[in-house]
Amino acid sequence: MHVLIIGAAGMVGRKLTAAIVRDGALGAKPVDRLTLADAIAPEVPAGFDGAVAAVVADISDPATAPRLLAGRPDVIIHLAAVVSGEAEQDFDKGYRINLDGSRYLFDAVRALSGSEGYCPRLVFASSIAVFGVPLPDEIDDEHLTAPLTSYGTQKAIAELLLQDYSRRGFFDGLAIRLPTICIRPGLPNKAASGFFSGILREPLAGKPARLPVPDTVRHWHASPRAAVGFLTHAATMDTAPVGPRRVLTLPGLSATVAEQIEALRRVAGDKAVALIRPEPDPAVMAIVQSWPRSFRAERAKALGFRAESSFDEIIRIHIEDEMGGAL
Amino acid sequence: MHVLIIGAAGMVGRKLTAAIVRDGALGAKPVDRLTLADAIAPEVPAGFDGAVAAVVADISDPATAPRLLAGRPDVIIHLAAVVSGEAEQDFDKGYRINLDGSRYLFDAVRALSGSEGYCPRLVFASSIAVFGVPLPDEIDDEHLTAPLTSYGTQKAIAELLLQDYSRRGFFDGLAIRLPTICIRPGLPNKAASGFFSGILREPLAGKPARLPVPDTVRHWHASPRAAVGFLTHAATMDTAPVGPRRVLTLPGLSATVAEQIEALRRVAGDKAVALIRPEPDPAVMAIVQSWPRSFRAERAKALGFRAESSFDEIIRIHIEDEMGGAL
Repeated sequence: MHVLIIGAAGMVGRKLTAAIVRDGALGAKPVDRLTLADAIAPEVPAGFDGAVAAVVADISDPATAPRLLAGRPDVIIHLAAVVSGEAEQDFDKGYRINLDGSRYLFDAVRALSGSEGYCPRLVFASSIAVFGVPLPDEIDDEHLTAPLTSYGTQKAIAELLLQDYSRRGFFDGLAIRLPTICIRPGLPNKAASGFFSGILREPLAGKPARLPVPDTVRHWHASPRAAVGFLTHAATMDTAPVGPRRVLTLPGLSATVAEQIEALRRVAGDKAVALIRPEPDPAVMAIVQSWPRSFRAERAKALGFRAESSFDEIIRIHIEDEMGGAL
Repeated sequence: MHVLIIGAAGMVGRKLTAAIVRDGALGAKPVDRLTLADAIAPEVPAGFDGAVAAVVADISDPATAPRLLAGRPDVIIHLAAVVSGEAEQDFDKGYRINLDGSRYLFDAVRALSGSEGYCPRLVFASSIAVFGVPLPDEIDDEHLTAPLTSYGTQKAIAELLLQDYSRRGFFDGLAIRLPTICIRPGLPNKAASGFFSGILREPLAGKPARLPVPDTVRHWHASPRAAVGFLTHAATMDTAPVGPRRVLTLPGLSATVAEQIEALRRVAGDKAVALIRPEPDPAVMAIVQSWPRSFRAERAKALGFRAESSFDEIIRIHIEDEMGGAL
């Protein structure tokens, strides 16, 4: 199987790539060819038996997607995006990458589908930012998408396109609304949600962390390991039971910032918790307040998607996967 | 006030233009300038005291919208669209006109909004085709948009764009989901919904009409006169109470084809009804089955939008407005 990952240099893309290289497979399906694309050069992983190509690619250039599809990948995993904070600050860039880039990809697949019977699985990483206030405490699978950010708007539009293109038979698409990924390893990025990871990751490494919102804020999380599992399942599952609604809100863990902090205290003690410094930021709070707090995710659960059930588990996964297994 | 109507040569556009010319105003607001644009030359109406320009315009050309906005219209009414049946048959044309055309317009307004404080009212005619099965008998204002046609997808995307652009302050937008307009005067068009009008209009004129679906099909209707009222209200109302959700499902009349036919019988007798010929068409039925049957439309009603309450009334309006007041 040939797998194309667009946005392969991002955190989730790198973890997915590492899992494919480790297993020689995506889930149960052997992978003999891997194309890694990103705006910055994706690292070519060592130890993969198949063919690997790493491509620097600007998806907002209409010529890019046809080039990426030259090897007719069987599975396309589209992770490339301008994150929420940046899409809100830079209107043009957000639409250029998140909307136009996605559409160019979908159209490039469509252009091939007509003549050769080419119909790849296309997994698009969408977001819970497609929902806007007012929101119930727990959101069901029938809830309307009424985003209040440009990022959420762009993701909601790409979902609609994916659904129509799949209905038309141009590709076999699934849009999966990932929870906020926590704990993100590495350095803070421009996402408004960055602090959800920062308040755990930095204290676990003995460093201070800023908390821009009150600890009563509740949000929806899954680990990077769960994200790799979501993408793998979406890329390899039978899509027949999904039906024409090709958008799935994935399972996750609903927790308040205070609950995150108590889990940190249980795992790493009061000293770690003391490193969290409240620094209220109205701009971050304004964005985060428009975000969902919890989902039922019944369709995705019935289709076999699985996430964590406690923040202690999420922190342990970070320690195992990022810190060599110990503090 | 300067009013720009895009799609002015269509049925609703011509009726709206006629109302403005008749009243010298849009609702209570005097109109001294009218720009009429369409893919085919809009008729320049006689009897208007202000300035009128009729423009042949292809909205899928990015150069068109900036040209249409040169006179800085205070109100923009965007009716231009490829209809449902055609958008399903011609994938490229549907996306080019219904999605790209709308986005070029929104972006052209945005380009002006930055430098001059230009912020027109922009009314976009959306559609109940944004909803897809499974659907409840009566759809509320919180129902998700999950279209199962390319037309519905394109309208849903334009709604999302309008909402984001309005939130950003680029224009003061309202997307209104019009019921199926019934009775459409004139010749049949390519809309899959065309027969809802045909089975009344043709027999009222003594002509036979095809009925491609069973008479148990229930649908959601409003007259052309109501459509003009909707657009006028949307163009002139105070938008402050609308809030950030700039999409409104409008009120209408829910009726079965059998109820339409019984109203025809009451108004025009058995002879008219006998002119309706069942000719089942699976392609039309497949599209129509994915459409809604009834709405609550509570938000729009609370905001002052009004429709008809019986099909007898809808037929009488047709006889008054199209047939000189008598059969």
